[in-house]
Amino acid sequence: MINQHYLSMLGNKSVIRELSEYATARGKEIGYENVFDYSLGNPSVPAPEVYKETAIRLLAESDPMKLHGYSPSTGHPEAKAKVAAALSRRYGIDYKACHIFPTAGAAGAIAHAVRAVTTPGDEVIVFAPFFPEYIPYINDTGAQIKIVPAHFPDFQINFEAFEEMLSEKVAAVLINSPNNPSGVVYTEETLLRLADILRERSAAYGHNIFLISDEPYREIVFDGKKVPYTAKFYDHTLTCYSYSKSQSVPGERIGYIAVNPAAEEADKLDAVFAQISRGIGHNCPTSIVTQVMGEIPDATSDLSVYETNMNLLYDALTELGFTVNRPDGTFYIFPKALEDDAVAFCRKAMKYDLILVPANGFYAPGYFRIAFCTDTEKVKRSLPVFKKFVEAEYR
Amino acid sequence: MINQHYLSMLGNKSVIRELSEYATARGKEIGYENVFDYSLGNPSVPAPEVYKETAIRLLAESDPMKLHGYSPSTGHPEAKAKVAAALSRRYGIDYKACHIFPTAGAAGAIAHAVRAVTTPGDEVIVFAPFFPEYIPYINDTGAQIKIVPAHFPDFQINFEAFEEMLSEKVAAVLINSPNNPSGVVYTEETLLRLADILRERSAAYGHNIFLISDEPYREIVFDGKKVPYTAKFYDHTLTCYSYSKSQSVPGERIGYIAVNPAAEEADKLDAVFAQISRGIGHNCPTSIVTQVMGEIPDATSDLSVYETNMNLLYDALTELGFTVNRPDGTFYIFPKALEDDAVAFCRKAMKYDLILVPANGFYAPGYFRIAFCTDTEKVKRSLPVFKKFVEAEYR
Repeated sequence: MINQHYLSMLGNKSVIRELSEYATARGKEIGYENVFDYSLGNPSVPAPEVYKETAIRLLAESDPMKLHGYSPSTGHPEAKAKVAAALSRRYGIDYKACHIFPTAGAAGAIAHAVRAVTTPGDEVIVFAPFFPEYIPYINDTGAQIKIVPAHFPDFQINFEAFEEMLSEKVAAVLINSPNNPSGVVYTEETLLRLADILRERSAAYGHNIFLISDEPYREIVFDGKKVPYTAKFYDHTLTCYSYSKSQSVPGERIGYIAVNPAAEEADKLDAVFAQISRGIGHNCPTSIVTQVMGEIPDATSDLSVYETNMNLLYDALTELGFTVNRPDGTFYIFPKALEDDAVAFCRKAMKYDLILVPANGFYAPGYFRIAFCTDTEKVKRSLPVFKKFVEAEYR
Repeated sequence: MINQHYLSMLGNKSVIRELSEYATARGKEIGYENVFDYSLGNPSVPAPEVYKETAIRLLAESDPMKLHGYSPSTGHPEAKAKVAAALSRRYGIDYKACHIFPTAGAAGAIAHAVRAVTTPGDEVIVFAPFFPEYIPYINDTGAQIKIVPAHFPDFQINFEAFEEMLSEKVAAVLINSPNNPSGVVYTEETLLRLADILRERSAAYGHNIFLISDEPYREIVFDGKKVPYTAKFYDHTLTCYSYSKSQSVPGERIGYIAVNPAAEEADKLDAVFAQISRGIGHNCPTSIVTQVMGEIPDATSDLSVYETNMNLLYDALTELGFTVNRPDGTFYIFPKALEDDAVAFCRKAMKYDLILVPANGFYAPGYFRIAFCTDTEKVKRSLPVFKKFVEAEYR
């Protein structure tokens, strides 16, 4: 008999997915170029040329037994060492190969990290607004997600609510900066205060609260900003990274967990992650893609289009009277809707073929997300449509 | 705090892994060519040339946005359709794209299949001898593994014990033919009888018992034999396949679940598998490797070396007086040890640098496994060593 829990999940399609499917269907009616589909966070620039060159070189020149062979269960040793060296150079933390565990993107990284540092029944705190897939990543381990309400209007951390929610049951805290959906980068001040609280409470409770830091947008920042590196602020940090956005290879499912060498049991954690993989039958990511990662750990696509698009949208939305933070990074902008009910707002926008995502699923009702990973030309064409929509519906 | 369950698993290294590590260490002392390492089931022939050609062609000619982009959560549609068509041609079952779910090898396939058709507390029956990793694949879902003792000496199914073990709590039965470690292919007679019992008991219990058929060795058969295709015998069959052995790409982690179109909820199961993937953060296998699978679903390496090695070992072991079935397929041979304690037997063999795996972990004590995926030249050199070992220790 089919598992009823999973079967019942089939009804609950994600809102983002539904909107994206609507946009595709509508595109078939009126031409996809006429649908301003801002629903999905799917990179809109190609992988860097060096990605292709490296993969072809490995295929053409490597011994196929070595290229396609089993990795040890803790991951491909040379690729681990190369990623560790690249991170050490960049952030001045002394990562060794054993601190890097290759994963199937950030999703695999987060799900492994949560399983490694929780026991069923433990709590994991996240901060609104957050990526809704965190819910299955956490709850399917047997741990329980606890949601700290958003800190309006800057979308840093609501420390008051956070401190109230902390208890002995909390095993880990999961953050995401640069943030999907808000586009906000947590400031040094935010990270210092967060780390202080975690150290204090870890001491009080007699166990280390782990900080799981989801950083797939680390390379996409605007206005010359720097993203403070979370692991520098707190020893027990598991950094979850994905190449999906920075190298535009989301289908290749490649990323890693970087364990801060100062964390509890840091040298053993890759072996713990490997045990978790056994139970889900996942094992290591694909060998060839892992080896490409090892060859070009710091390569990125040309990401400049995202800043161009952000500037266009930020200026236009501000001009139209939206309340909106200027995004620090990511390819999202996160304005307040023009009525309290963001779902109604986004439904009205659909009449103009503007596909926007209400932020209820991100636990920030009243806001909506624009994923501006699209051609700049299309962003430009959408601006008068936004104007028409706002003037017709809200003036 | 680190999860104590996974931490405690670190102590329990697999016997096979330990033996393989010993062989590597010993190889450093005396030269690896002098260690007859029959421990690991790791393919010893390269991937077919067409694998490399196909991957390079896709990289060189495809739009990178399409090649490296997200798949739908149910898997890459074109690759699914192509695998379905190839299976339909080969086995005359009318698979459609929705019946194929790409997975991270057979491990991912089995773990997903078990989760899909069980609820925590259910039982899953396996038949000794079996691959020990079935234990975490099953038990980590919350279901419970139940082991039917081996049927000596032919290693078909012990139906008497099986029928006793069946109950309302049994949700699925997991088989593996050609079998690791016995090398045996289940006969048509075995599969007919198994299917009859499953139909009978499904009716009696009021729920369909699923048959999960693990078939990574399907392409490695000897003496011109045919492997009966399990799904032809029973509607509710989930066929778990991996390209690790047939295409010699175990590191690429690619395979699939093929859902018999006649199975319960057959058209919905890929969506159920996709929900399972969400919870473990695994999502789809790597995009490029999935697309290569779609291009060359029936390609295999030159697998003839395994039959050559089998013949050499079977003749020599028989000559030395071992009780041993002639393997029907795989790259394993599974003789009875020359004393009751196979662990002691294998320990003595180590003195001669013969690395054999006692079958206690496969739930067939008294037997041992030889994984003959190695150079024929080395197999030949090992034969006088077997002779010397047997004559010195057991004559």
